[in-house]
Amino acid sequence: MGGSLTRDRIIVEADQLFYEQGFEHASFAQIAKALGISRGNFYYHFKTKDEILDAVISHRLVRTRSMLDGWELEGETPIDRVRSFINILIVNGAKIRRYGCPVGTLCAELTKLNHPARDHAKELFTLFRVWLRRQFEQLGLGDEADELAMHLLGFSQGVATLSSTFNDDKFVQNEVNRINEWLTSVTTRAEVQPEIL
Amino acid sequence: MGGSLTRDRIIVEADQLFYEQGFEHASFAQIAKALGISRGNFYYHFKTKDEILDAVISHRLVRTRSMLDGWELEGETPIDRVRSFINILIVNGAKIRRYGCPVGTLCAELTKLNHPARDHAKELFTLFRVWLRRQFEQLGLGDEADELAMHLLGFSQGVATLSSTFNDDKFVQNEVNRINEWLTSVTTRAEVQPEIL
Repeated sequence: MGGSLTRDRIIVEADQLFYEQGFEHASFAQIAKALGISRGNFYYHFKTKDEILDAVISHRLVRTRSMLDGWELEGETPIDRVRSFINILIVNGAKIRRYGCPVGTLCAELTKLNHPARDHAKELFTLFRVWLRRQFEQLGLGDEADELAMHLLGFSQGVATLSSTFNDDKFVQNEVNRINEWLTSVTTRAEVQPEIL
Repeated sequence: MGGSLTRDRIIVEADQLFYEQGFEHASFAQIAKALGISRGNFYYHFKTKDEILDAVISHRLVRTRSMLDGWELEGETPIDRVRSFINILIVNGAKIRRYGCPVGTLCAELTKLNHPARDHAKELFTLFRVWLRRQFEQLGLGDEADELAMHLLGFSQGVATLSSTFNDDKFVQNEVNRINEWLTSVTTRAEVQPEIL
């Protein structure tokens, strides 16, 4: 059979189809057809769509961790690093306008389906949440770090949903400007605090 | 056959199932079973799931207009009326935590499916957008009224997505407090402006 190379190709293809069409809509047949592999080869690697879903989520977790590690290394200050997060909305703007946020839309779908993998998918959000929280902690905003992290996650989800519905990149830019101003005001407050205390 | 009463019952049931499970997942069979009607009776009213979807969206548009008219009548000032919009996140909190926002999740799903009804569903967002814009115009914020309306819509979508993933009503309350403070600051600015000019 195809070995783990075929397994990896199935995961990458399924990841893309689940994102572009939704988990429920994407089918075994589509994935197999896109890869040109036989039914037998496919079933050798995955018996059910739920098994593929778990592998796709694990794959996304690895990629997300690696992206966050990259931002950690590139950004000189915690503010730079938080801006890397905000900038996904611009960098991945075209895909988000077409298909929404890959994390938010998957979690929303699995929540509705009450799917056993929903907690696994939620870990994707949790990775971002914990990473953002750490940036705010490093800015001396420990007490409200988690709330600020959740506020940023909520911001990103709202922009993603509306930009995919209205297909409007002016709106995305307005919201990114707004949240960058917010970030400046929050972090300016953080810098001022030590002087007061 | 059942006449328009049966048609209405199908629409109400389909509306609920599309919301709770997603459009793609919900089936003719489920709707018919929930209502205890025969296949023949069902097909007399609707031949395809897409026909039901169009009827469901039209039904939601009527209900949304009527809700907005209610807020218009109840709220003494435009600020009160905007707060009615913000409060949906609290009033419908339990449902949103379980199934997300009915408008946002439907639009997200139809966008991914590239479904012909996506523009019809988008009208639901547009109703809120135009209504919110009018409130900001009445506050003397005409120039930025549309941007403020979109900001509020984005806020509501972000909170809905995260609250359904994390099932966290503390987060919802924090975000509602935050946006209410924002609304106060925006409208205070609006009241001050005429004195300056």
